[in-house]
Amino acid sequence: MNAPLPASALPRNAPPEMLAALKARFAERCSTAMAVREQHGRDESPIDAPPPDAVVFCESTDDVVAVMQLADRYAVPVIPFGVGSSLEGHLLAVQGGISLDLSRMNRLLEVRPDDLIVTVQAGVTRLQLNREIKDSGLFFPIDPGADATLGGMSATRASGTNAVRYGTMRENVLGLTVVMADGTVVRTGTRARKSSAGYDLTRLMVGSEGTLGVITEVTLRLYPLPEAVSAAVCFFPSIAAAVQTTIQTIQMGVPIARCELLDPNAIRAVNAHDRLGLREAPMLLMEFHGSPASVAEQAATVQEIAAEHGGEDFEWATTPEERTRLWTARHHAYLSALQTKPGCRCVTTDTCVPISRLADALLETVEEADASGLPYFLVGHVGDGNFHMGYLVDPALPEERATAERLSEQLVQRALRLDGTCSGEHGVGLHKQGFLMEEAGEAAVEVMRRVKRALDPKNLMNPGKIFGM
Amino acid sequence: MNAPLPASALPRNAPPEMLAALKARFAERCSTAMAVREQHGRDESPIDAPPPDAVVFCESTDDVVAVMQLADRYAVPVIPFGVGSSLEGHLLAVQGGISLDLSRMNRLLEVRPDDLIVTVQAGVTRLQLNREIKDSGLFFPIDPGADATLGGMSATRASGTNAVRYGTMRENVLGLTVVMADGTVVRTGTRARKSSAGYDLTRLMVGSEGTLGVITEVTLRLYPLPEAVSAAVCFFPSIAAAVQTTIQTIQMGVPIARCELLDPNAIRAVNAHDRLGLREAPMLLMEFHGSPASVAEQAATVQEIAAEHGGEDFEWATTPEERTRLWTARHHAYLSALQTKPGCRCVTTDTCVPISRLADALLETVEEADASGLPYFLVGHVGDGNFHMGYLVDPALPEERATAERLSEQLVQRALRLDGTCSGEHGVGLHKQGFLMEEAGEAAVEVMRRVKRALDPKNLMNPGKIFGM
Repeated sequence: MNAPLPASALPRNAPPEMLAALKARFAERCSTAMAVREQHGRDESPIDAPPPDAVVFCESTDDVVAVMQLADRYAVPVIPFGVGSSLEGHLLAVQGGISLDLSRMNRLLEVRPDDLIVTVQAGVTRLQLNREIKDSGLFFPIDPGADATLGGMSATRASGTNAVRYGTMRENVLGLTVVMADGTVVRTGTRARKSSAGYDLTRLMVGSEGTLGVITEVTLRLYPLPEAVSAAVCFFPSIAAAVQTTIQTIQMGVPIARCELLDPNAIRAVNAHDRLGLREAPMLLMEFHGSPASVAEQAATVQEIAAEHGGEDFEWATTPEERTRLWTARHHAYLSALQTKPGCRCVTTDTCVPISRLADALLETVEEADASGLPYFLVGHVGDGNFHMGYLVDPALPEERATAERLSEQLVQRALRLDGTCSGEHGVGLHKQGFLMEEAGEAAVEVMRRVKRALDPKNLMNPGKIFGM
Repeated sequence: MNAPLPASALPRNAPPEMLAALKARFAERCSTAMAVREQHGRDESPIDAPPPDAVVFCESTDDVVAVMQLADRYAVPVIPFGVGSSLEGHLLAVQGGISLDLSRMNRLLEVRPDDLIVTVQAGVTRLQLNREIKDSGLFFPIDPGADATLGGMSATRASGTNAVRYGTMRENVLGLTVVMADGTVVRTGTRARKSSAGYDLTRLMVGSEGTLGVITEVTLRLYPLPEAVSAAVCFFPSIAAAVQTTIQTIQMGVPIARCELLDPNAIRAVNAHDRLGLREAPMLLMEFHGSPASVAEQAATVQEIAAEHGGEDFEWATTPEERTRLWTARHHAYLSALQTKPGCRCVTTDTCVPISRLADALLETVEEADASGLPYFLVGHVGDGNFHMGYLVDPALPEERATAERLSEQLVQRALRLDGTCSGEHGVGLHKQGFLMEEAGEAAVEVMRRVKRALDPKNLMNPGKIFGM
């Protein structure tokens, strides 16, 4: 199942001299074994491409500098790689080149509980971070589902379930260490919470999808573990009712920490996978953080709103174990859905609209999906106006892929008409370049291209992504 | 009192043909009257420079495009101007050129209460915005003190008293309309709360100080007016005690909305100016937002912390009128202090450090200022680790200016040693270019310069600011 690649995707493969230099510098940490290359040449997207020419396992910023200096000398692309959880083809070597595996850069460099910040190497994953800081009384809230690396999450401007309260990577990265295309090391940001000193290079790099530099270290904001946490599920007579409950909750300013929607297809899948026995009806999964009094107050407000829309069968969880059970449904939705259609691949959408337009965006989309006959599931960070349709396609049936692409196209057009975005959190990668052009306009994309050319004149950094350069 | 200008500050004055073309297009909205030019050729910084060649009063994005097209043709600089409240020389025509007055672009273009967003023209001021949306039940929290324009606040990445809870302009600008150096109009962002679609051009423009383009429209996040608001002042035996109270409040995660420090000098000035009769001791001014129960809970927690540090004479205000009285002290501190030394000018500092370093940064700074004999006052958004020393200098006495510069230099060096920033919210402008280089490093500033050259190859946009280009 080959998706069309950008027209400019001319391979620039690593010449033997460069591979020899990498082997000399990195020994067994530079691999040209086909299995290793293939594992680094795909991600969770439904797109296929030839594998990278080699994989280099970096352990330090200096290692990355060494690779970039060689890449610069031989004009060969470099693709940063974390755990491979991209959904948009970010990791594919569409123009050849070296996959830069950062997963061994997995050390916490500095924990500063008194300042509520931590500095990590880019290969640290979010679950590892939270495990290692557990005793500090702090946590890092951003949760995109996958146990992604914090470098990768920065590069795609990830968010996920907690963003409605804690923001996205945009709000939570304080500073970065970045290796630029020519091997220069740049440090952005300071340890202060805010700054007006010069261009916001941190935010320029966050979301640049590896096309401007390799993120090797990340300084992040942490939060005190809430005194009280309470989670609840609630079932609704229709998706519309669940969405209206969400909209009113946000409009009233309830500081809800998580507000997730699962449709009956998603619940059916997790019930089959995890024997959860949940009612197969539109479900909101909510979480409240704060003092005991504040959590009780938030919960009471939302329960009132939900009741107005026919929400019922509230199930509450306050202990970590009970909460984990409820969240299993959300966290296993993607993998469970894949298992409902053996051998399938998933075409995932990622639109985000202003909260008042959420019902319009979602209900028409569900109608179209139902009419198509293609199996799908729906999960959403609906508190942000962000939701994902997952269309399950048989790779052997091009007509299924075409149907999924048509549905995806219609959904994005609708989101753009409703003043939304084609990507809430997954990034543009290979797949959404046309949508980005429609959303941002030629003038804005040309500004992006100029920045790209200024910082990476040889187009070495993850070329072919975002805008096909 | 002339501060040194950057070495590259070669004037590129508007030739007569350009002025004639501007007059033809804008008639009486293009002024070359000396009084108008002089008024647009200075700001609240203590720096003098020759006035701009002309002032154009723009009323629309199209007007700005017309000016930029002429500027591009004649290679003449353009300096965007809001209300002139910059403290860092942003508005000075150090390389000649046209001052672009945006204050007549003062319309709210779209209020969307259901999405908690508003789109304004760049010349709308923050007080005007809050007046005009009063009946919506929403408010815009960012409060830098001055009644600045929202375009100017975006351009300097402003923040102020509410940032500790609501973030800065970085977090609260959703999208922009920007006229680029060649007259192209770019729209950044969407109306969705988050997006991963391409480079974050919004954040690249926020804080770019007019050097990358002219911001003409701003889409902002709004917040529901809190159900309950409570403000309090509290006096401490020492600045150290007030700072420790702040540090512990932040570290405990209390969602305090405002946390401001005034030193006895600042209080003495506002007492004289407004007959407030406040105790002339280190004072914290705090505000709590939320439900009645949550506000009561926050207040009780902070009162406990303050008591441990000898905080006393708590005075509470819950009605808007009482709160206004307390906030008068903070909002009038700058102007009141200027009046304690007739004819003086104020050298203002703007460092911000990680919260755990705040005591170190502040106490040594106060000691040095006391030892210098120069009159000063201290106010701080201490919840963010951000504070301002205002050194009052006699423009006729160069030695006073030198002392203020030495104190400012020592303070910034200290903040950088403590992992902080030379500018928390005022920007770099003309005055902090050396500090930016020390803070960010040559490699990061070179990245900024490359972006600048890529987007403004003729260096038309507010040249000479941030990095002397």
